[in-house]
Amino acid sequence: MKNAIIASTSTIHGSGYLEYILEELSLLFKDVETIVFIPYARPSGISHDDYTEIASKAFSKIGKAVIGLHTFTNPKQAIKNAKGIFTGGGNTFVLVNQLYKNNLIDTLKEAINTGTPYLGTSAGSNICGLTVKTTNDMPIVYPPSFNALGVVPFNINPHYLDPDKNSKHMGETRETRIKEFHYYNTQPVVGLREGSWLKVENESIILKGTLKARIFEYNKPPYEISKDTQLNQLN
Amino acid sequence: MKNAIIASTSTIHGSGYLEYILEELSLLFKDVETIVFIPYARPSGISHDDYTEIASKAFSKIGKAVIGLHTFTNPKQAIKNAKGIFTGGGNTFVLVNQLYKNNLIDTLKEAINTGTPYLGTSAGSNICGLTVKTTNDMPIVYPPSFNALGVVPFNINPHYLDPDKNSKHMGETRETRIKEFHYYNTQPVVGLREGSWLKVENESIILKGTLKARIFEYNKPPYEISKDTQLNQLN
Repeated sequence: MKNAIIASTSTIHGSGYLEYILEELSLLFKDVETIVFIPYARPSGISHDDYTEIASKAFSKIGKAVIGLHTFTNPKQAIKNAKGIFTGGGNTFVLVNQLYKNNLIDTLKEAINTGTPYLGTSAGSNICGLTVKTTNDMPIVYPPSFNALGVVPFNINPHYLDPDKNSKHMGETRETRIKEFHYYNTQPVVGLREGSWLKVENESIILKGTLKARIFEYNKPPYEISKDTQLNQLN
Repeated sequence: MKNAIIASTSTIHGSGYLEYILEELSLLFKDVETIVFIPYARPSGISHDDYTEIASKAFSKIGKAVIGLHTFTNPKQAIKNAKGIFTGGGNTFVLVNQLYKNNLIDTLKEAINTGTPYLGTSAGSNICGLTVKTTNDMPIVYPPSFNALGVVPFNINPHYLDPDKNSKHMGETRETRIKEFHYYNTQPVVGLREGSWLKVENESIILKGTLKARIFEYNKPPYEISKDTQLNQLN
């Protein structure tokens, strides 16, 4: 029993925070009045309060209240009691570190696996994979583990970016990085372009949005899938 | 007593492996016949043998032999005995993990600090900072620590990339990432553009190459420095 949206990004170019996906979120959180927001990833280092305010403003447009997880004295209990959960983007290492520190990994996993409606964007989506070893973020803190929630049986690469053929920069392309991942890991990786999301309902995992996604399987050439593709056999 | 080159990249656009810096390397390794190559970072997952072959070809142009560290039964002793050392780029997490696994961190640090001529490129430069928390690489393996060699009293960000003002991609810019680093860490970060390197001689650390570098200090706006700037006071 799962009911989750795993989104590449919170914001697409030229549009407001969560704006592109609000209609979908009305459905995901249709029976939820108040969403517990996990602000731990702190994009650009903003405070938990400021980050919660941003989420709050966006959700007010669809009539939902938002409470920051940092405001609860017992965050474990807050996750257990939550009617809906949203984990925002930012730095995946900071997010995972804080989840481990507060002993929330198993609690959050159980909440999502037992059907609490969940939205993740960017770092909040990364943690839905088996590990966070395919994050794009800078490792600015050292978390106790790279193991993540495993809501889906593969890894996520959010903000997936195609190689820029005109670039003179010699740093690795995203595709090269994910290929390197497969020298040390065997699970598939779903490269989610900005504006795409995975809709997880019970055992179903479907690609949504208008774009294709790029799939990287161990020992196979990468390939594209179209929207509405079912991914529950990918593992 | 140090004698090291910490380079942003091995290869600049439109030029061969190490080609842009070979003249400088002739000087660095002027009294060295055979260079011990640390191939652990395995760019694109290539084998240690194949990677050593690439380094070997480049160094043959200036009359130097290259031996891969992986070919020694006792790598610790090999580092201690080395007359010159080169650590190539690739994945910083893979490199650091292998150095820890083989218990080489302290040995390599001591070799460099006691004057063994050392060249690092990309990941091989990252490890010369205090930590590898400002690498651009994907965390495809989980190393025992992010602490690095501390050859210089700050962190390195190789392949430094200026923000692309025309980009519609919503992923973080390099500058944003380094600013986030400073919410959790206080040491300076030197953003080395491709084609730049730091020349470390005893207590002197000088920016070389034709480009400026970007310096990020804790609680200060980032700023540019010109080539030939002395950085030994940056800490």
